[in-house]
Amino acid sequence: MALKKIDLNSDVGESFGRYMLGLDEEVIPLISSANIACGFHAGDPSVMKRTIDIAAESGIAVGAHPGFPDLLGFGRRKLDASLDEIKDYVTYQIGALQAFATSRGLRLQHVKPHGALYTMAVANTTIWDVVAQAVAAVDSGLILFVLGGRNRREIQDIGARHGIRIGFEFFGDRAYNADGSLVSREQPGAVIHDPQAVADQVLRLVQQGRVRCLDGTQIEMTADTICVHGDNPAALKLIKKIRRTLMDEGIEIAPLGRYL
Amino acid sequence: MALKKIDLNSDVGESFGRYMLGLDEEVIPLISSANIACGFHAGDPSVMKRTIDIAAESGIAVGAHPGFPDLLGFGRRKLDASLDEIKDYVTYQIGALQAFATSRGLRLQHVKPHGALYTMAVANTTIWDVVAQAVAAVDSGLILFVLGGRNRREIQDIGARHGIRIGFEFFGDRAYNADGSLVSREQPGAVIHDPQAVADQVLRLVQQGRVRCLDGTQIEMTADTICVHGDNPAALKLIKKIRRTLMDEGIEIAPLGRYL
Amino acid sequence: MALKKIDLNSDVGESFGRYMLGLDEEVIPLISSANIACGFHAGDPSVMKRTIDIAAESGIAVGAHPGFPDLLGFGRRKLDASLDEIKDYVTYQIGALQAFATSRGLRLQHVKPHGALYTMAVANTTIWDVVAQAVAAVDSGLILFVLGGRNRREIQDIGARHGIRIGFEFFGDRAYNADGSLVSREQPGAVIHDPQAVADQVLRLVQQGRVRCLDGTQIEMTADTICVHGDNPAALKLIKKIRRTLMDEGIEIAPLGRYL
Amino acid sequence: MALKKIDLNSDVGESFGRYMLGLDEEVIPLISSANIACGFHAGDPSVMKRTIDIAAESGIAVGAHPGFPDLLGFGRRKLDASLDEIKDYVTYQIGALQAFATSRGLRLQHVKPHGALYTMAVANTTIWDVVAQAVAAVDSGLILFVLGGRNRREIQDIGARHGIRIGFEFFGDRAYNADGSLVSREQPGAVIHDPQAVADQVLRLVQQGRVRCLDGTQIEMTADTICVHGDNPAALKLIKKIRRTLMDEGIEIAPLGRYL
Repeated sequence: MALKKIDLNSDVGESFGRYMLGLDEEVIPLISSANIACGFHAGDPSVMKRTIDIAAESGIAVGAHPGFPDLLGFGRRKLDASLDEIKDYVTYQIGALQAFATSRGLRLQHVKPHGALYTMAVANTTIWDVVAQAVAAVDSGLILFVLGGRNRREIQDIGARHGIRIGFEFFGDRAYNADGSLVSREQPGAVIHDPQAVADQVLRLVQQGRVRCLDGTQIEMTADTICVHGDNPAALKLIKKIRRTLMDEGIEIAPLGRYL
Repeated sequence: MALKKIDLNSDVGESFGRYMLGLDEEVIPLISSANIACGFHAGDPSVMKRTIDIAAESGIAVGAHPGFPDLLGFGRRKLDASLDEIKDYVTYQIGALQAFATSRGLRLQHVKPHGALYTMAVANTTIWDVVAQAVAAVDSGLILFVLGGRNRREIQDIGARHGIRIGFEFFGDRAYNADGSLVSREQPGAVIHDPQAVADQVLRLVQQGRVRCLDGTQIEMTADTICVHGDNPAALKLIKKIRRTLMDEGIEIAPLGRYL
Repeated sequence: MALKKIDLNSDVGESFGRYMLGLDEEVIPLISSANIACGFHAGDPSVMKRTIDIAAESGIAVGAHPGFPDLLGFGRRKLDASLDEIKDYVTYQIGALQAFATSRGLRLQHVKPHGALYTMAVANTTIWDVVAQAVAAVDSGLILFVLGGRNRREIQDIGARHGIRIGFEFFGDRAYNADGSLVSREQPGAVIHDPQAVADQVLRLVQQGRVRCLDGTQIEMTADTICVHGDNPAALKLIKKIRRTLMDEGIEIAPLGRYL
Repeated sequence: MALKKIDLNSDVGESFGRYMLGLDEEVIPLISSANIACGFHAGDPSVMKRTIDIAAESGIAVGAHPGFPDLLGFGRRKLDASLDEIKDYVTYQIGALQAFATSRGLRLQHVKPHGALYTMAVANTTIWDVVAQAVAAVDSGLILFVLGGRNRREIQDIGARHGIRIGFEFFGDRAYNADGSLVSREQPGAVIHDPQAVADQVLRLVQQGRVRCLDGTQIEMTADTICVHGDNPAALKLIKKIRRTLMDEGIEIAPLGRYL
């Protein structure tokens, strides 16, 4: 019987100069794929180097986490950039991180857009299309991480058209709507705070391919990678709980690039 | 008889957003190696893309022109960055440009530090050493452009130690001291304004391997690439004069990577 | 008989470091109110100082031209900043310019938001409200420049509520809709290119308080200040034509603060 | 008998966007003068507003803490800016903070340059001169904080020439050389780590006007304000110890502007 595998990804390398953010040294050994900020919304060249080093020592996979050029807003504010600008921003940031990976003897595994760029792409698949174009043109071996749950076919087509693989992503601590979309953060119940409930939701997804939605209905969903957070001690504990829950069920945590 | 060859390099891609700088479309077809700004002291992702496109259409070689993160000072102000920071800045910028080159089917030929970073390296070869390290770790096929005239052996050793080629650079419009260093811009006569005198100095260097210094002495010097400027119409005319002078003597203008 | 007066305003001080933009030295003597960029979307401390100097020598009024912190996009891209952030950005930028004005013995006359910030405020008067709050809190003697033509009463109320004066602005080279709004730049005919037509439209507004709309209807409109451009030689000629046209009719061009 | 008074100043408002730095809410009520970052090396418009609010609620004095435009280096790296640029940077930053102070009904008390700008001025009094010029031109009521111990007469002359008051500053946790200069951080013993020793050194200075130097000699020194730090819990405890030590001796902690 083949062992079930799942990828755990987390945003890391978000410090900037004198400003420290995240518990990277503790988080990285617990995940399998690191989304590394590339200096636009967070991160700087020296932070990128250091983060690549930590990931290399932990043997996990590394990916670019490109965002909008808005350090002040941490890339979380929608910016009315053109499609060409978005494509160029993604190209630039992948390349910058790639240089640190190459210097360390690593190859990037994936690209996951950050913050408002990710949210805007979820709302407008034309943005996924230009992001996929940028990714493919730099390295067609890269996997593009995209929110799973809706538009799956459309996103797969975008990946196929540009010749890259898509890694569908699931948020363990977020409630889902019956149409497979995320419950908006403005709504009550959008974020699941109980660690057990989060671990259960992740396990249900991985084992049964199902999500229990906020409205009570149960829907089918599959995902390739689970997004976890690591910017505070409670988040760290939650990652550990998710890991233990998965491993107790014989599920292996491994970088997506090894089995997608 | 082997045809003599020389490379002409120029700083391009220095526009930023709404701000246009340089006559790139006219300059690029006249040179053989483009030093493309990488978004720190000048340039932005869309400008980098556009500049790579123009260079690709002209069939010339492209290189990274990394500088200090000081857009306000155009990278011309000394910044007391650590050696590690400098190394990381160079790595980052090469990678960012590399992604645009790869996306266009090109490979970077060279790296030439910009402004204060270049000047600081000329004054302190330890900086050349970390720059060479950064370059070699990203792509050991890259040529590092370094000011020729002094410390030639030391610089060659740095290149050899890190396994990369060095391209020694000559400034056609600058006066030299008898020790092979550039006459400081603060001194009268530092910049040669007469186009004929510039063309003559370039020709003398290429054909005879000699420079007539400001103090009248003549010294031996060899160089692999000639730096020319292209930010105003007069500069453009000067490039054309240099080209004509060289070509009239049967010297071929070609990217350094093809024959170094 | 009282002499008719009108204010001509233009965006200036948009250079940044090595990047020159606009013909400030030629434009400033031709206008009566200078909207000076404050370092967020354009301008830098030294450019601000120089621009204040030129304005002081020309005896014209100076005002702050605050924009979004998006130098790369020249403040022209919508940014999903919160109302509090917008208020703080405006406060900061007014203060920064005020310091240069004070240092030169001048007092700021007005504030005119730039680019996407202006456009977003025109579409959502809540933004005018926080901008007015910011302006009033820094100096209630400041005039806030707002697009005239629509929502006049509502904007006046905002000014009254915060205790500041509003200066309604008219764009001489833009076509208007019958409801008093600007024709979108996406539509044909949005920008009036014929200098004579621009001068006529300005004169009609100043003398008769009327605008001939793109659809042929004629509407009533009054304005306190006319926006003109100065970033190229043709624009400069247009300003001269508008000035001549107004002066030939005995209309005085004077800073709004002197007579509002 | 007149009560002895001393000012405690600390750098605050150093957060930036999503990046939190310092324990401002706890530090500000313990000091009498807040040096608020102005958005160049640290701080942003919203942080400045919030910091002014906290200071206003605590009833302490506020001052501008201008630095180099080097967020990545936290303003700690020497930057080869021209004297004019430095003057313009200081003007700009004072103005920006002033707007927030005015909006809250406060007036700035002082200006203290940050990091490398401060260090460069200490090494080159020409920089103090242009900083003083900038300060005086914006508001001659402002006090300029300058490192005490050396060049006292020269600095006083600079203040007098430009018509502003100088507040000489003392570092409680730094060792001094016999010539009144700070022991370089590169040397062992440069920083005093024992809280009792720091408190004793501060008390000795305030009561006796003396400092025991690292080499054992005792020198005379007077100062107007003591610099304390607040970026970690230990620093906070140290401030409390210094306060208690001073207050136990009947020394009042009060903003310098009230009694200089």
